[in-house]
Amino acid sequence: MTLACGVDVGGTKIAGGVIDEDGTILEEHRVESPATDSEAIEDAIAGLVKELSSRHDIAAVGVGAAGYINKARSTVLFSPNLAWRDVDLKGELERRLDLPVVIENDANAAAWGEFRFGAGHDVDDLLLVTVGTGVGGGVVLDGELYRGAFGVGAEIGHMRVVPDGIVCGCGKKGCFEQYGSGSALVREARAAAAGGSPLSQPLLKLAGGDPLKITGPLITDAARDGDPFAIGQLAILGTWLGEGIASLTEVLDPAVVVIGGGVSEAGELLLAPVRAAFLPQLTAHEHRPILEIRKARLGNRAGLIGAADLARR
Amino acid sequence: MTLACGVDVGGTKIAGGVIDEDGTILEEHRVESPATDSEAIEDAIAGLVKELSSRHDIAAVGVGAAGYINKARSTVLFSPNLAWRDVDLKGELERRLDLPVVIENDANAAAWGEFRFGAGHDVDDLLLVTVGTGVGGGVVLDGELYRGAFGVGAEIGHMRVVPDGIVCGCGKKGCFEQYGSGSALVREARAAAAGGSPLSQPLLKLAGGDPLKITGPLITDAARDGDPFAIGQLAILGTWLGEGIASLTEVLDPAVVVIGGGVSEAGELLLAPVRAAFLPQLTAHEHRPILEIRKARLGNRAGLIGAADLARR
Amino acid sequence: MTLACGVDVGGTKIAGGVIDEDGTILEEHRVESPATDSEAIEDAIAGLVKELSSRHDIAAVGVGAAGYINKARSTVLFSPNLAWRDVDLKGELERRLDLPVVIENDANAAAWGEFRFGAGHDVDDLLLVTVGTGVGGGVVLDGELYRGAFGVGAEIGHMRVVPDGIVCGCGKKGCFEQYGSGSALVREARAAAAGGSPLSQPLLKLAGGDPLKITGPLITDAARDGDPFAIGQLAILGTWLGEGIASLTEVLDPAVVVIGGGVSEAGELLLAPVRAAFLPQLTAHEHRPILEIRKARLGNRAGLIGAADLARR
Amino acid sequence: MTLACGVDVGGTKIAGGVIDEDGTILEEHRVESPATDSEAIEDAIAGLVKELSSRHDIAAVGVGAAGYINKARSTVLFSPNLAWRDVDLKGELERRLDLPVVIENDANAAAWGEFRFGAGHDVDDLLLVTVGTGVGGGVVLDGELYRGAFGVGAEIGHMRVVPDGIVCGCGKKGCFEQYGSGSALVREARAAAAGGSPLSQPLLKLAGGDPLKITGPLITDAARDGDPFAIGQLAILGTWLGEGIASLTEVLDPAVVVIGGGVSEAGELLLAPVRAAFLPQLTAHEHRPILEIRKARLGNRAGLIGAADLARR
Repeated sequence: MTLACGVDVGGTKIAGGVIDEDGTILEEHRVESPATDSEAIEDAIAGLVKELSSRHDIAAVGVGAAGYINKARSTVLFSPNLAWRDVDLKGELERRLDLPVVIENDANAAAWGEFRFGAGHDVDDLLLVTVGTGVGGGVVLDGELYRGAFGVGAEIGHMRVVPDGIVCGCGKKGCFEQYGSGSALVREARAAAAGGSPLSQPLLKLAGGDPLKITGPLITDAARDGDPFAIGQLAILGTWLGEGIASLTEVLDPAVVVIGGGVSEAGELLLAPVRAAFLPQLTAHEHRPILEIRKARLGNRAGLIGAADLARR
Repeated sequence: MTLACGVDVGGTKIAGGVIDEDGTILEEHRVESPATDSEAIEDAIAGLVKELSSRHDIAAVGVGAAGYINKARSTVLFSPNLAWRDVDLKGELERRLDLPVVIENDANAAAWGEFRFGAGHDVDDLLLVTVGTGVGGGVVLDGELYRGAFGVGAEIGHMRVVPDGIVCGCGKKGCFEQYGSGSALVREARAAAAGGSPLSQPLLKLAGGDPLKITGPLITDAARDGDPFAIGQLAILGTWLGEGIASLTEVLDPAVVVIGGGVSEAGELLLAPVRAAFLPQLTAHEHRPILEIRKARLGNRAGLIGAADLARR
Repeated sequence: MTLACGVDVGGTKIAGGVIDEDGTILEEHRVESPATDSEAIEDAIAGLVKELSSRHDIAAVGVGAAGYINKARSTVLFSPNLAWRDVDLKGELERRLDLPVVIENDANAAAWGEFRFGAGHDVDDLLLVTVGTGVGGGVVLDGELYRGAFGVGAEIGHMRVVPDGIVCGCGKKGCFEQYGSGSALVREARAAAAGGSPLSQPLLKLAGGDPLKITGPLITDAARDGDPFAIGQLAILGTWLGEGIASLTEVLDPAVVVIGGGVSEAGELLLAPVRAAFLPQLTAHEHRPILEIRKARLGNRAGLIGAADLARR
Repeated sequence: MTLACGVDVGGTKIAGGVIDEDGTILEEHRVESPATDSEAIEDAIAGLVKELSSRHDIAAVGVGAAGYINKARSTVLFSPNLAWRDVDLKGELERRLDLPVVIENDANAAAWGEFRFGAGHDVDDLLLVTVGTGVGGGVVLDGELYRGAFGVGAEIGHMRVVPDGIVCGCGKKGCFEQYGSGSALVREARAAAAGGSPLSQPLLKLAGGDPLKITGPLITDAARDGDPFAIGQLAILGTWLGEGIASLTEVLDPAVVVIGGGVSEAGELLLAPVRAAFLPQLTAHEHRPILEIRKARLGNRAGLIGAADLARR
């Protein structure tokens, strides 16, 4: 059985794992990410892979990273959280490792992971929506990862959903991720609590009276315990997600939408509002096959697993 | 050289043509469309094809129709302007014609036509945006027509661009085609003229003083003659289009966007504002390859030509 | 019984009448208004008064005019539709007539007329809202006409009701009269008809198919005949009026609001929605005395009658 | 010289003072306000007055209280923060005190105080705008306090300035005081800080990192020290105030607007933006006399002083 190494490069951590052909992680490590130093990250990735390959017979390496990867899957054109600008990461790593390397956008890699071994294993067409700090997306079409003409597609978090809306970190206004991300969830809950909304007071109390201590997991926990404000905030988030997914469905027509990312841990507290908002926003939904909306299965290891599998192909 | 017959079924007319392998139309006919009678349309299509095949050696028939076509390209699931609901149109026509038939969404067929013989002949990835009564879309990816999991993708006109926006014919609010179509252009110009906007008075005069006589071609003509209101109305339309195309580009990442449909006849009066609005709405555009926005080349025959070519494949 | 002459100076007509102490019009005349020539209007007013005084023993002259009148009731500071800018109209007319003259804002004069002889004859505190081309206002407090510190108060039509709203003729955005006037009624109905609103088609037919032939009286007539669109348009207008009157009531606390101006001819078709919208927009309405909303009684002669009565005092 | 006692009844404190004919406070006391017990407040007021009258020869008592006071100045119809509902407060206090008592709305009393002895002593027509927890108003016209037909006028904080705007404590949406009060200032600053606005971080640091510790005085202090966020927040508040005052000026036409309440302590940091926003929002401002906008002079004793003076008249 051929083994591959999957690497997930984030802003604070680099995770690496040895993955077999069934998507099983045989061994996994994490190291700090020296995010601001381009060469240091490359060294860190190479070190991680070398350590894993000292104990496993690895055939290829797949690296998932946030940002734009070129069509040839070799160069990081731009990464919002890391130092890379037009860096031939494939070349740099192959030089250090003497192994074939494939670079992929992290959400694309995660979509591939869920398609191969997770929530989309039974279909050919899938849209992954990751709900975390931002909103990421990955698309599988007819069993192939969708990469676009230049390799930079599926950036669904920057579809505009509100003209003249909330300013996004990217500089535009009204981007989907300003309404559908975990950051939006936290921002709105904190603002309500700090602005004096009476309904938010129990959650504020859970946060020790400090609005800045309100976090996504705290909201999810409170919602599970029945707190109406927390349930409502997840429902508002889910509504934005459902409406955005409807727009994406008009364009992409996937068979399954998989909701991943940290906030997807809220489960039905998030997914029920997503489904409720989705259907009425789908044109002529009584005359077309309706996709399924599912929770992701591979958690935060989808990228790792997907990247390794892409490298093996 | 293999010839194919292309048919474009509209709400008022059915057009049929004989197309060669270079996309050239050898002969073309149009008949009235008996839109409300499902069988009568099928008979009309068959009659048209029979007439053409009496004079040409036709190998296959491609039919483009507005609406949802199933993944197998055989059944019209739903057509907004025609009587078809879950009709096996391929079967009905093959029974009448004894020729292989392929059914395709009309905007998809037009996208294929522009890809093969028109404005996108030199690229592998293309998004066609047709600006007419509504806003239609067709996508070609890696040289293949993109059809989605259920065959109903690329319905870009129903992507929501304004929450709680203008009511659409589909029943939703804020659909792209309520802002980016020729109907939107005419609606806004008429409303301004009827509401007493001083700037609109010269255009109103051109329309004989009756706001209802303001049409898309009249606006385009006035704009060409330098009328500031008409130029402005096309610029507003172009801005909505450019902003919507930016959102679509985040998701689809095409190499070329082709603007077709009747309003594209306005040329640079429309395309210049589209381009001006597009770029600032594209996240991190300084770090990614930028697509080209081009005018369609095949006019209202793109669907005919594309459908024929699809049938031949 | 002392008689006085009342004059109402409009943009197209000048009306003059002889009024007795009971508010009865003994004789009335109208002449064209030479609106663009300041002196010519003064001559026309003087001619009209002289003719009336040749047959009646007139003690004083009251002139109502749209615009800002100074605190001393002598000078027209500014008139939007007439040529006067800082004109001592009282002096000009007294020189021509040898009679005491009082100048008053037209809506103020109308408010005084309704207070003395019309819908507000039984109360001490009244707000008149005139719904015509614009929205005008006049206020009577404790039995005295309210004139403000500089004589330019009660300009309720330019209270802002929508931030960044519709551009007003005055140059500001979102003024009350852009939502609560007869012009707003007509503008919206024409825009809906010209924009293709299906509901508006019967009214459009009544207008001979030309949206520009839709007028306020046509809408009122259609509403009386049960046309749902016309009824709805009057209800939308009435809602804006009721909401604006609620804001004015928070500030002014009148005992009676009188709705005048041409559109008030619609009667309960307008007043019922005004009342329905008013109450929920009044803070703590269950804890305060509630004013009455009444239709004006003196029609378009309220200004004439009021101006004459003010002159006599 | 006749002395009068002025009482200001707030939600947490009752202040009482002995005031001479020049508006000078000879002695002042404060006691806790038993806000939820109607009779206990009356006893507390009576006790306070008795103590003051034991040392001064008091001729009359004026009481200012938040809420609706009837036209006869005897009955509290409704008080949002106190227990009174239709209470004959004048009767209750005269029974306890054997002195003539006058009841007045607190902002009205403050307007009268500023008119007689403060920022409006030199004019006959004044609008007081108090910017504190809410937005209160008082109007003096031709040297008389404006009380409206039912005694409940000048409630400018509940004029609607944004349709479908922020929910107000009164149950309506979009009330002026949701945009122009100190509470609005604090709410917006806290929400920005809690929501992660980078610009707000220095202010958040001043608040010890806890958004809930951001207060009006903290914002004012930071603005005085040049903090751009704090300056900006005061400018946004001032803009809303200036725009609202423009609407009120269209209606009321005062000679002077006096800005009082706790936030007016910010001085020109607030008043400069008020003036800058006011003028462009005043229709035809180049054709009318322009009022002055001044800072209040009597601070939080304006109500006390005004109530006493009203009692003496």
